Amino acid sequence: MKNYLKHHEWQIIEEGFDPHVNKVSESIFSIGNGRMGQRANFEEEYSGETLSGSYVAGVYYPDKTRVGWWKNGYPEYFAKVLNAPNWIGLRISIDNQKLDLAKCKVENFRRVLDMKTGLLERSFTATLPDGKIVSVHSKRFCSMANGEVGAIRYALTPVNFSSKAVLSIYVDADVVNKDSNYDEKFWEEVYKESTEGRGIVTAQTKKTLFHVTTGMKYNIESEGKKVDLSRINLEQREKYVGNVIQVDLNQGKEVIIYKFGAVLSSENHPKEKLVDACVRVLEEASAKGFDKLFAEHAAVWAHKWEGCDITIDGDVAAQQGIRFNIFQLTQTYTGEDERLNIGPKGFTGEKYGGSTYWDTEAYCLPFYLGTADQKVARNLLVYRYKHLPRAIENAKKLGFVDGAAFYPFVTMNGEECHNEWEITFEEIHRTSAMAYAIRDYINYTGDEGYFTEYGLEVLIGIARFWTQRVNWSAEKNKYVILGVTGPNEYENNVNNNWYTNYLGAWTLRFAQQAIDYVKKADAKRYAEISAKTNFNEKEETAKWKDIVEKMYYPKDDKRGVILQQDGFLDKELIPVSKLRPEDRPINQKWSWDRILRSCFIKQADVLQGIYLFEDDFDLDTIKKNFDFYEPMTVHESSLSPCVHVILASRLGYKERAYEFYLRTARLDLDDYNNDTEEGCHITSMAGTWMSVVKGFGGMTIKDGKLNLNPYTPDQWKSYSFRLEFRGRVLKIKVSKEKTETILESGSPLDIVLNGKILSVK
Amino acid sequence: MKNYLKHHEWQIIEEGFDPHVNKVSESIFSIGNGRMGQRANFEEEYSGETLSGSYVAGVYYPDKTRVGWWKNGYPEYFAKVLNAPNWIGLRISIDNQKLDLAKCKVENFRRVLDMKTGLLERSFTATLPDGKIVSVHSKRFCSMANGEVGAIRYALTPVNFSSKAVLSIYVDADVVNKDSNYDEKFWEEVYKESTEGRGIVTAQTKKTLFHVTTGMKYNIESEGKKVDLSRINLEQREKYVGNVIQVDLNQGKEVIIYKFGAVLSSENHPKEKLVDACVRVLEEASAKGFDKLFAEHAAVWAHKWEGCDITIDGDVAAQQGIRFNIFQLTQTYTGEDERLNIGPKGFTGEKYGGSTYWDTEAYCLPFYLGTADQKVARNLLVYRYKHLPRAIENAKKLGFVDGAAFYPFVTMNGEECHNEWEITFEEIHRTSAMAYAIRDYINYTGDEGYFTEYGLEVLIGIARFWTQRVNWSAEKNKYVILGVTGPNEYENNVNNNWYTNYLGAWTLRFAQQAIDYVKKADAKRYAEISAKTNFNEKEETAKWKDIVEKMYYPKDDKRGVILQQDGFLDKELIPVSKLRPEDRPINQKWSWDRILRSCFIKQADVLQGIYLFEDDFDLDTIKKNFDFYEPMTVHESSLSPCVHVILASRLGYKERAYEFYLRTARLDLDDYNNDTEEGCHITSMAGTWMSVVKGFGGMTIKDGKLNLNPYTPDQWKSYSFRLEFRGRVLKIKVSKEKTETILESGSPLDIVLNGKILSVK
Repeated sequence: MKNYLKHHEWQIIEEGFDPHVNKVSESIFSIGNGRMGQRANFEEEYSGETLSGSYVAGVYYPDKTRVGWWKNGYPEYFAKVLNAPNWIGLRISIDNQKLDLAKCKVENFRRVLDMKTGLLERSFTATLPDGKIVSVHSKRFCSMANGEVGAIRYALTPVNFSSKAVLSIYVDADVVNKDSNYDEKFWEEVYKESTEGRGIVTAQTKKTLFHVTTGMKYNIESEGKKVDLSRINLEQREKYVGNVIQVDLNQGKEVIIYKFGAVLSSENHPKEKLVDACVRVLEEASAKGFDKLFAEHAAVWAHKWEGCDITIDGDVAAQQGIRFNIFQLTQTYTGEDERLNIGPKGFTGEKYGGSTYWDTEAYCLPFYLGTADQKVARNLLVYRYKHLPRAIENAKKLGFVDGAAFYPFVTMNGEECHNEWEITFEEIHRTSAMAYAIRDYINYTGDEGYFTEYGLEVLIGIARFWTQRVNWSAEKNKYVILGVTGPNEYENNVNNNWYTNYLGAWTLRFAQQAIDYVKKADAKRYAEISAKTNFNEKEETAKWKDIVEKMYYPKDDKRGVILQQDGFLDKELIPVSKLRPEDRPINQKWSWDRILRSCFIKQADVLQGIYLFEDDFDLDTIKKNFDFYEPMTVHESSLSPCVHVILASRLGYKERAYEFYLRTARLDLDDYNNDTEEGCHITSMAGTWMSVVKGFGGMTIKDGKLNLNPYTPDQWKSYSFRLEFRGRVLKIKVSKEKTETILESGSPLDIVLNGKILSVK
Repeated sequence: MKNYLKHHEWQIIEEGFDPHVNKVSESIFSIGNGRMGQRANFEEEYSGETLSGSYVAGVYYPDKTRVGWWKNGYPEYFAKVLNAPNWIGLRISIDNQKLDLAKCKVENFRRVLDMKTGLLERSFTATLPDGKIVSVHSKRFCSMANGEVGAIRYALTPVNFSSKAVLSIYVDADVVNKDSNYDEKFWEEVYKESTEGRGIVTAQTKKTLFHVTTGMKYNIESEGKKVDLSRINLEQREKYVGNVIQVDLNQGKEVIIYKFGAVLSSENHPKEKLVDACVRVLEEASAKGFDKLFAEHAAVWAHKWEGCDITIDGDVAAQQGIRFNIFQLTQTYTGEDERLNIGPKGFTGEKYGGSTYWDTEAYCLPFYLGTADQKVARNLLVYRYKHLPRAIENAKKLGFVDGAAFYPFVTMNGEECHNEWEITFEEIHRTSAMAYAIRDYINYTGDEGYFTEYGLEVLIGIARFWTQRVNWSAEKNKYVILGVTGPNEYENNVNNNWYTNYLGAWTLRFAQQAIDYVKKADAKRYAEISAKTNFNEKEETAKWKDIVEKMYYPKDDKRGVILQQDGFLDKELIPVSKLRPEDRPINQKWSWDRILRSCFIKQADVLQGIYLFEDDFDLDTIKKNFDFYEPMTVHESSLSPCVHVILASRLGYKERAYEFYLRTARLDLDDYNNDTEEGCHITSMAGTWMSVVKGFGGMTIKDGKLNLNPYTPDQWKSYSFRLEFRGRVLKIKVSKEKTETILESGSPLDIVLNGKILSVK
């Protein structure tokens, strides 16, 4: 797909209609607002290849797990992201011919996603089978100003004829998922109504019983005048309401349909008040009208971009790529609702179950910390705090006791919903991603009060998990951690994965630090937490200390490198460069056992640990490990390249850093992995942001101070990024000659630029 | 279920009808003849809990695999054992009341399986809802003399009334499997016919298109006279044919239905000739009549028992147990058809897919070697020879090249049909079970010619697999084998499982031995095989030698034990005796990760290797390893105890040996694992035989000589077993005082008894 989409600084542009890549474009041009979102499906009917997708944040279905051989402890279900009722639909028929781009000659097709304002536009000229030509220009957005509102302006012009059009404008809850075990439907009708100009359907999900009320209100303008809606036909069938109306088409004169959508869920309204609330939302939206709604929406985007934009001078493709990543992240998660999280596909597809992976903590948190008010990142932390009881339940199922907390690998509501023993049960490092996120947040914001309010409880739970998960090796005279999967998922059930051991022991140290802080800062609260968690400080922390002191870390003294796990050196150590092209990607070409016993690394593992705890390692150690592991890394996870950009930047490997950057920044725009049709890689987009800010910009926080060590990739003239940091907004402009730091708002502060303190005013 | 069934030397006896255990009894009382078999389902209708099961050897359905997360290399299907058309059915209605034991008062119920003659008998008195009492006595067998024939004698007596009975006698191919992914049916009708006294249905399996023609012919006798069949109603519906006939019931007078079944499959007849052949089989069988057919059948059993019986004096439960095991094994596999094998449930249930596991080579082969003509065991070997091309295919799928052979873990026709990466891809030792079986066969029979005819080709393929599967560890300066699952399936993806490494290297040595033999014995054939396999002797055997010399074997010098795998000593080494009862069996109580990181062993692993290569280890080594590993072994595989009987016997641990023996001998009769309702544990039954002959009897073959080192468990007075050995039948009688060896047929030979040569005449 390289170069299929036009390069542009602020827009994604598709010119000409290629049905073969329509599903890819549907993913890329997706729009959302944190609460609802949708793929760039056409408003009018389309009988060609398409993946219909409308999504409502937090609404899922617990599908029965399909698994070959059941293991004790597996969760009963897999949380499916549901395709939600469709509010965008229009059917247009002219002289008994449907307007369906699969059945017309299509010219001048242009699809544009304006990232600056979050507007999806589409225009085309279609020749109907009988030769009548219509031109269409549609605009659509999901309001960032009101998460329950979407709006469409759909303009239709008869080019070479005058006639009548029959319009059917509807809400359809009779939708299916592409991914369902038995082709079953997940929605049941609860309520519906249709009147002139309006239609509402309340549908509930099976099993989970979420209610979603989807409404539409519309008006039609012809030659500048409102079309009378009194002579319409009301349509109703199961889970479906619509209006059918006939309008005059006069050659060359535009007919404009304004359709306002409202999507309300029982997560935000009492079920019995959903319909009333929906009516209110619809009436307000239509009263404001498309232009005013859009102005409000665009204003929110303008504000968002102020905080998070990155500019790149001298490389339009790179500029477009980074903005696309930021755009998608921003519309996926707005940080306003602490019950929500960042699904791997956001609002762009239904693939992968559940909404939350460790991606959030390990990859996304830094983006939201750096680009938004700190409450956004804080809500991500509180989300996990609220799941603590379920993490404790989850641990219990696996035999842990006394309040040990094992956070799920994939979840919707705190319960585990993934079923591969080697991941679900053994990729245990993810539970400490929650601990690291607390550190990351406090480190960046200075908000140590978070320990007191929420952090400590979570840390005690996680620390208890590690205390029970290690065992004493009489052979090594050390604590060991057996049977795990590290971040490199191309190794399963290994012993003493260094990353896991390091993170586990670090968590115990960090929990101790939290205790020390809370005891001093708020002794009463400490007593409260101790009582609530039944915490035996003396005994438990003594055990922590013992584990920290006697934890085993595999290493190779000869090479001076950390070992990814016990036995790693028994492998044949072959660089990726020696692999035959036909063997790649190995996850599509090799059987699992071959991948497992090979040295090839899916994504940063030892290097992930070094990245997270950079201060613990000197440059020589970083270099030795990078030089040892990176050549064996196949980067077959979208989460891999960003960590390598950052470490390569530290080591002055500028060319390598830029190569890794390219692998992440345009992953979806260029459909590198040939899978964007299923949705965009949302969580890894945060890695692109990190690549620029932490990689090229060299941003770190040390002792509460913002540090920058920027350089400019050779391919760029200059670049800039903004950072929200402790109440300030800073703009950092980097060129080959100099680095400018501008305080855009907030009080002056000292930062460290290239190792020297600089006062920014 | 302990003591539910009566103890008897030759019979399994159930007295009184307990519907709750009916499915268990259906399994235990199953009958078969190597070609066909069935659970002890009632002939008449039964609306209570039942698992209908009729099976035809070699007939299966390749069901689409259900698996959570697909891995490259997985086979597309899972070979399902199919419930086949039912030929035993009768419906009996008396004054509009069905004879259905779930709806009658049942008295004097007695179900007897006579193991001596392979006859299933059942008798009972049933009171119908209106108070009429009938008594029934049925007999049934699947002919060992003609594998396509079954026969029923069903006698019905009205006890307290005279009336009429409506009989419906049928063949029903409209059957279901308990285990189907979507409750679908697997049989389609091809042909049917019904005439007076006869009915035939040909059904074909979906996808595999096996044709099975199932026929019945019957006659009815009332008061010693044949009932006229001219006034019957013919019944036909989809996949079903039957006759409905009304018979007079006169108080106290027996009505006898003789029903002859014929089951023919397209594996043994051209499809277009199946019906004709079926008619012939039916006519012959009914012409012979029940008694003559039975006499022929019983004669075959008498002959079989002559070769394989074990007597135990002083312990009826043990006697019954061992005979039950021998009976089931003998009726599961007769050794006449080299395309067949020993399914884990035989003809007793449909659980587990496929028919063939490494159980055949590792556990069953010694039984057939010891108890039957050597061609029976040879056919088991030829079965694998015929699958060699598919084993090579299977290896290719996993990235192996140049004729490497990787035998499947589960198969029906040579193709792998199991889908768990840790087993399918990693439990690689099973491919050398095929090599070991060749050694076992030649060692026992002296038939070295097998190398020439079939063995060498197989060994070259397997040797090539190992050559490619090892890798050089620069760290250890040895060859290592990474990422495997050993016989102890409670460890997955481990490195250097000792059993696997040992077996792999041994295979290379054995393949060399085969080459040396064939080159000398038949140079022409050797050249032929070399050409066919594209064998580069010099290069390939040099590599074998190198691997044999430099193979790595994990061990613990301190304890003087072999290590099950790298890193085993990092575990917490806890004896099973320390486990809380509520934690057992761990495979039902613990999550998989917990099992994996524990030290607990499912079944013999290091000890399996020591058992297979006993001569390679001195008694002290055996003792140290037994004392180290057995206490950590939970024996949660039915294949575990027998190996421990044998090694415990060697070590003089007589009490332990007897305990292990009890765990294996009455596993199904006492439903120890609470799972016999799904079928009996057929393959592990061979372990019971080994326990007696190799364990208590101390039977080994050394330098072509039969060695015996027998002892008598304290709980027994004496015991005896027969051995077919190189053309002789020997009977060995062991008591506490002495061991008698009697040559029942064949020429005199020298054996080694308790280390001394003895001439047996």
